[in-house]
Amino acid sequence: MTRYQRLATLLTQRIEQGLYQPGERLPSVRSLSAEHGVSISTVQQAYYLLEEKKLISAQPRSGYFVAPCGVTPPLPPITRPVQRPVEITQWDAVMDLLTARLNADVLPLGSGAPNVDAPTLKPLWKIIGRLAQQQDPRQLYYDNLYGVPELREQIARLMIDSGCRTTADDIVVTTGCHEALSVSIRATCQPGDIIAVESPAFHGTMQILRGFGIRAIEIPTDSQSGISLEALELAFEQWPIKAVVVVPNCNNPLGFIMPVARKQALLTLAQRFDAAIIEDDVYGELAYDYPRPITIKSLDIDGRVLLCSSFSKTLAPGLRVGWVAPGRYFDRVLHMKYISTGSSVTQTQMAVAAFIRQGHYQPHLRRMRHDYQRNLETFTCRVRHHFPCGICVTRPQGGFLIWVELPEPFDACRLNQNLRLSGIQIAVGSLFSAAGKYRNCLRLSYAHAFTEKTERALAILGVAVEKAMLSCSSLVDASPHREMEEGRASLKEND
Amino acid sequence: MTRYQRLATLLTQRIEQGLYQPGERLPSVRSLSAEHGVSISTVQQAYYLLEEKKLISAQPRSGYFVAPCGVTPPLPPITRPVQRPVEITQWDAVMDLLTARLNADVLPLGSGAPNVDAPTLKPLWKIIGRLAQQQDPRQLYYDNLYGVPELREQIARLMIDSGCRTTADDIVVTTGCHEALSVSIRATCQPGDIIAVESPAFHGTMQILRGFGIRAIEIPTDSQSGISLEALELAFEQWPIKAVVVVPNCNNPLGFIMPVARKQALLTLAQRFDAAIIEDDVYGELAYDYPRPITIKSLDIDGRVLLCSSFSKTLAPGLRVGWVAPGRYFDRVLHMKYISTGSSVTQTQMAVAAFIRQGHYQPHLRRMRHDYQRNLETFTCRVRHHFPCGICVTRPQGGFLIWVELPEPFDACRLNQNLRLSGIQIAVGSLFSAAGKYRNCLRLSYAHAFTEKTERALAILGVAVEKAMLSCSSLVDASPHREMEEGRASLKEND
Repeated sequence: MTRYQRLATLLTQRIEQGLYQPGERLPSVRSLSAEHGVSISTVQQAYYLLEEKKLISAQPRSGYFVAPCGVTPPLPPITRPVQRPVEITQWDAVMDLLTARLNADVLPLGSGAPNVDAPTLKPLWKIIGRLAQQQDPRQLYYDNLYGVPELREQIARLMIDSGCRTTADDIVVTTGCHEALSVSIRATCQPGDIIAVESPAFHGTMQILRGFGIRAIEIPTDSQSGISLEALELAFEQWPIKAVVVVPNCNNPLGFIMPVARKQALLTLAQRFDAAIIEDDVYGELAYDYPRPITIKSLDIDGRVLLCSSFSKTLAPGLRVGWVAPGRYFDRVLHMKYISTGSSVTQTQMAVAAFIRQGHYQPHLRRMRHDYQRNLETFTCRVRHHFPCGICVTRPQGGFLIWVELPEPFDACRLNQNLRLSGIQIAVGSLFSAAGKYRNCLRLSYAHAFTEKTERALAILGVAVEKAMLSCSSLVDASPHREMEEGRASLKEND
Repeated sequence: MTRYQRLATLLTQRIEQGLYQPGERLPSVRSLSAEHGVSISTVQQAYYLLEEKKLISAQPRSGYFVAPCGVTPPLPPITRPVQRPVEITQWDAVMDLLTARLNADVLPLGSGAPNVDAPTLKPLWKIIGRLAQQQDPRQLYYDNLYGVPELREQIARLMIDSGCRTTADDIVVTTGCHEALSVSIRATCQPGDIIAVESPAFHGTMQILRGFGIRAIEIPTDSQSGISLEALELAFEQWPIKAVVVVPNCNNPLGFIMPVARKQALLTLAQRFDAAIIEDDVYGELAYDYPRPITIKSLDIDGRVLLCSSFSKTLAPGLRVGWVAPGRYFDRVLHMKYISTGSSVTQTQMAVAAFIRQGHYQPHLRRMRHDYQRNLETFTCRVRHHFPCGICVTRPQGGFLIWVELPEPFDACRLNQNLRLSGIQIAVGSLFSAAGKYRNCLRLSYAHAFTEKTERALAILGVAVEKAMLSCSSLVDASPHREMEEGRASLKEND
């Protein structure tokens, strides 16, 4: 047995004995070398061996970590939102989230922005530079209301991967997925109407509903299979629901991919009650498994699905290149698009079209999927390590967002204010509920590679959560009824 | 007397005798040379002499024209729209206008796009190229909801020229002026509300009102002094008007600049009836006189004016960089902006900010103002030359749009369909009325330098107009009542 093999065996024992916990960072190469009086390269060889055995994993710029073991935190249970249409609140909290990212010192763990530093994105800069060199005046004009034709062609081709047989003529380019959702909601509903949403649901969608005076009915949603079809059916029977907004692929914030059979069942339900489906597929291309999941749109036979997406999560949000394939609502969507912004920026559309056409898009996607999946592993491990027990954590099937549920009546809003002083920003759960539920939840981003800074942030976050939970439980003991009255279950309910 | 002086005298006589009409193209240098048996340079010298005397003017790539004489066509009289709130129609006609510009063969005389070929715009390309070279990831992120800070600073500085004392913090960047108008309307009104508009008014604004279920009351508008304050006061007394949308500087489509006293009086009226003023200043920087006219916003003391503008007319529409200074409605505007598109493209905002900061903006503006004013002279002349008598034409004080009124019941919509076959597109007057008035009017663009192609187009247009007017008058004779029933005055009313 060589030196490095002996060292590897010793480390394996320590891991098995729990001296190093799953997800924990292992000693640095330098310190192990000093501790055991062996050379740096011996330690490195030992670590390589353990890495091969999948006992540990290396994180660039961060060191070696014990691989996650079988004991993962439980998934959050199916949600139980209020079962009636409500007016949407939470604008102040959304503003708070949006303005927090203005401060460069803040670590934006609550952000929904992707990583734009990957080398596979570099060709985009070259393309933009070349377009500027060409000085084609077309870039300076309004192109047309539908969007730049070559971009719509590329989008139609991409949509084949999600099972859709759309053509360029079926697509309207928008200023990000945000505008796609906004015009789709306006095209299918009138003020005062009711829309069914997942619970939790993307806060941007909620605010669009609020802005147009539309009420939301939140439907119980499972963190693995998505919106409860049984609850949705009941809601349909009880209320005149005009449309359902869902994120069936790599859901924001829960990370699930809805199984195909449930996608089909949701469509059948919408057909039965003649409702539109607004399908937000903005994270769909970032599913970890290949081939990517199909969309509900691909099953649609009567044009009732409005598919909304963008390159904001796959390429870069600052490009604001999104689209909608609105089915039978095409004309109304086009009208609403004209009302909203007239047309979208021409140059970024041309740049994205060229990026795809020149073959840069798929390699970039592969890279990002791989990076995000790797980040997820470390991130989940470290969350489990730093956070107190009793938490539930989602297991995203794509994208770069996890959802952490803490025992009620933990208050993430109060926590968020304290964290700001430590330079950490999180997305509080209540943003994702029309009625302000999920105050005991957080959404965290693992878009960026795990670094020392992330480690420190999670450590601070863990301590803060523990502290907040302690003060919460004493609060509950003191006034359990107050918490109950506010519509939140007490700790006892969870027992 | 030299040869060229003799030739100049001869040409002067011909002009004075009416052999060459004001605005008419003079014989080419070559043909005059042949006709009079003199050298090319003699003819050129003769033309230079006449140009100095302001008797003729040279148009690049087009030749020499007789300068406009004192006999200009009359201005359109003050408009007389229906004096009650109406639902907006005309979407199909707007779509028709928007899709016509898709065809490269069509001469878009109806377009509202500026000329983007000026050499003073070249630095913008360099800036975009340099930004791409720098690969600053900030360009790929959402910047923030308010817009890129350095752009807002430059905008605040520009606004000083219009008399405003705004700071960067008073400004929200939007996806073009279109979004600025859209969010301003949404921030001040609810569905079912009534907004007062000029008549005629920009079709984009009308469609936004339609999209949000807001009714418009069209107020009589004078082609020199703007919206009738007397009629507006009556409307205020009769209807619960929430806001007034006006284009007081270089109005679209009438071209007037509202006198300062009337701007102040409009503001006082809005104060008295507690209404918001949505001021569209998108053509304000293109006023021919220096210094540029002030905005109503600059007189505002209680934050009721929402100033909307963009670089779409001064730089390039494809950039989609606009802004709103929403006064007391700031928070609601910001919310509506979030709902509409989330945020705007970062890169084009940074490029425009650099273009202004590096000192390219003012020289470019000077150039464009000069070009448009020169184009206007030729264009008006040639319209008068080719169109039948009895027309009224506006005298724009800025921008690049004129409004031609033909005797009723001339139908520009029918004309437009016939013209399409000749590759000419115009903006029909009915686009600019909520109730579809002004079918007898056209809006034409003189953004581009007058060329042989423009000359041919105006000739075709003139013949078509004459033909249409002849067939119209026979139609009126046949069924005068039908025209009356449709709410249009017959020719007799004008007699």
